[in-house]
Amino acid sequence: MLLLHLSDVDEAGWAKAFAEALGPYPVVRRGDAFDPADVRYIFVWKPKADAFDGLNNLAAVLSLGAGVDALMKHPNLPDAPIVRFVDADLSQRMSDYVVAHVTMHHRQFSRFQADQKARRWSQFYPPAASETTVGIMGMGVLGQDAVKRLLPLGFTVRSWSRTPKAIEGVEGFAGSEQFDTFLQGTDILVNLLPLTPETTGILNRDTFSKLRRDRLEGGPAIINAARGGHQREADIVAALADGTLGAASLDVFEVEPLPQSSPLWEIPNCYITPHTAAISSIPSGVKYFTRMIQDHEAGQPLINVVDRKLGY
Amino acid sequence: MLLLHLSDVDEAGWAKAFAEALGPYPVVRRGDAFDPADVRYIFVWKPKADAFDGLNNLAAVLSLGAGVDALMKHPNLPDAPIVRFVDADLSQRMSDYVVAHVTMHHRQFSRFQADQKARRWSQFYPPAASETTVGIMGMGVLGQDAVKRLLPLGFTVRSWSRTPKAIEGVEGFAGSEQFDTFLQGTDILVNLLPLTPETTGILNRDTFSKLRRDRLEGGPAIINAARGGHQREADIVAALADGTLGAASLDVFEVEPLPQSSPLWEIPNCYITPHTAAISSIPSGVKYFTRMIQDHEAGQPLINVVDRKLGY
Ligand SMILES: NC(=O)c1ccc[n+]([C@@H]2O[C@H](COP(=O)([O-])OP(=O)(O)OC[C@H]3O[C@@H](n4cnc5c(N)ncnc54)[C@H](OP(=O)(O)O)[C@@H]3O)[C@@H](O)[C@H]2O)c1
Ligand SMILES: NC(=O)c1ccc[n+]([C@@H]2O[C@H](COP(=O)([O-])OP(=O)(O)OC[C@H]3O[C@@H](n4cnc5c(N)ncnc54)[C@H](OP(=O)(O)O)[C@@H]3O)[C@@H](O)[C@H]2O)c1
Repeated sequence: MLLLHLSDVDEAGWAKAFAEALGPYPVVRRGDAFDPADVRYIFVWKPKADAFDGLNNLAAVLSLGAGVDALMKHPNLPDAPIVRFVDADLSQRMSDYVVAHVTMHHRQFSRFQADQKARRWSQFYPPAASETTVGIMGMGVLGQDAVKRLLPLGFTVRSWSRTPKAIEGVEGFAGSEQFDTFLQGTDILVNLLPLTPETTGILNRDTFSKLRRDRLEGGPAIINAARGGHQREADIVAALADGTLGAASLDVFEVEPLPQSSPLWEIPNCYITPHTAAISSIPSGVKYFTRMIQDHEAGQPLINVVDRKLGY
Repeated sequence: MLLLHLSDVDEAGWAKAFAEALGPYPVVRRGDAFDPADVRYIFVWKPKADAFDGLNNLAAVLSLGAGVDALMKHPNLPDAPIVRFVDADLSQRMSDYVVAHVTMHHRQFSRFQADQKARRWSQFYPPAASETTVGIMGMGVLGQDAVKRLLPLGFTVRSWSRTPKAIEGVEGFAGSEQFDTFLQGTDILVNLLPLTPETTGILNRDTFSKLRRDRLEGGPAIINAARGGHQREADIVAALADGTLGAASLDVFEVEPLPQSSPLWEIPNCYITPHTAAISSIPSGVKYFTRMIQDHEAGQPLINVVDRKLGY
């Protein structure tokens, strides 16, 4: 039996699609009558405190989100394996966001908008993509998809991950020892890390001050498409004000929705989107987890299982 | 002998670089003492009315610009072959501009900026790149380079040219008979045509009204990176006002610099850059034309010669 427990999203829509895809395999929701001991899989998004009560025969917890940082903090998280959502469609959408914001900063969007507002015809030529280095933090599913899109555009790409990576065309850096060297050659910093105790607050003033300063007019840019917990918003506000950063694109925030009182809303070279970089669509999510359940019921191992010690 | 005749650019810088590259081959500028009959090559940008006077032994006219529309209107243009500038670095920079503006419109930049200004947290998800069609007018050197960058991003790409083209992954349309069909499936229209009598004013209300309307929120977008003569600015102003177009990126204008009085400056979903999409750099230009002169002096044919009947 598959139990759905989704908050803030269309649980009924997911349930209907799962029921169709899984055929005879039973699919239930919280309000339904069922025996908790029959639940083998629970599909969750923002589960309540009692979400896992009585589910003593769980084979796996399935996470609608690609990131499991919130789930990992659940006070009653059972021992069962946690499977996260990994999907080509989701990766494509995330890369759409990343490429749009990388190219915007590379082409000095903020400068040209300021010129336009002042009716100023000022012929400034941005560097070629090949003269610009994009540094990606996190070289997992999403980081690697972004690389695949950025290299054909001509950008120089470097990566930073926990363990060393050998990816063609990308200069790889790993671990805290190599973090500063990674930053020193980066003009546009893209964050695609999972949120863990090690990565919390990594987008801070100290990090910003180590980025390369002499390539992009106006200063280096940052793009955060991972989690709000990665960033220190007070530091971003200060860095954009004093020129430590030239621009920032933020899809995620310390508190979401971003409070009305946040100073970020009013900063012209801060580009805010409301956590919409990438969405898990019902068709692709149902396809992925249906296949996973059927394969696992047929004796295959689970894939994309979260390492609970590492937290991602 | 190579004569330089460049207005509005660093002629002295070009002369110095050519003299170094061409070694013993003589390089002169307008003010220098030389016999016009000795001039075999003239390298021009915005040539004056008397630019070609007395040059009776010209082997070729070399154009600093990739586009020769202005040159073709010169009242005393000699009969010699006209060679235009074609260069990988120039193409890269043009594609940088095209990709930045395509992805910006695809990711609904205007909408998110309006939301930010209103401190509105409104979760809207743009379509995936694969659900969006970019239609490129002009499938020459620059159009083909743009294709090479847009396909790996996942966009659906279609092209329109004078003669049919078979380019892998691109649906090709050709000639005026297929223009409407081309437009009907296009969400983001990119202009990379040369300016000729046939293409003058092609970005007009009639063209805009035929673009696909149901895919991009807010309406289809146009990007003009070719020549100001391609566009009817009054039509763009009207189309952005009444929603026929959702957004426009313009690098070129009917009159340049864009007059202070132009209404385009103030339209928030019109993105103005001051004819800086792509620049011909001195190093790459000198390399290209030096090679051309040396090869031609050694008996090789000229390449990238303009067809004077077609005008490009
Ligand atoms: N804004 C949105 O709409 C949205 C949508 C989807 C996902 N996300 C976020 O994106 C994150 C990344 O997703 P993914 O699927 O690419 O994750 P993933 O495949 O697990 O990749 C994580 C990458 O981060 C690296 N990493 C982890 N801890 C590190 C540390 N302490 N130091 C350096 N590198 C470290 C990992 O290094 P190793 O390779 O060495 O393990 C790996 O390369 C998710 O966790 C989620 O929070 C956001
Ligand atoms: N804004 C800037 O900074 C900047 C910089 C560089 C260049 N440009 C502009 O970009 C233009 C294109 O450059 P390019 O090097 O790509 O030129 P190109 O190689 O000559 O290609 C021109 C393309 O346009 C097509 N075409 C010409 N007339 C047509 C018509 N009447 N109907 C349909 N298609 C037509 C051609 O079709 P066929 O293939 O069938 O001949 C060809 O595919 C230049 O002319 C220049 O004005 C602008």
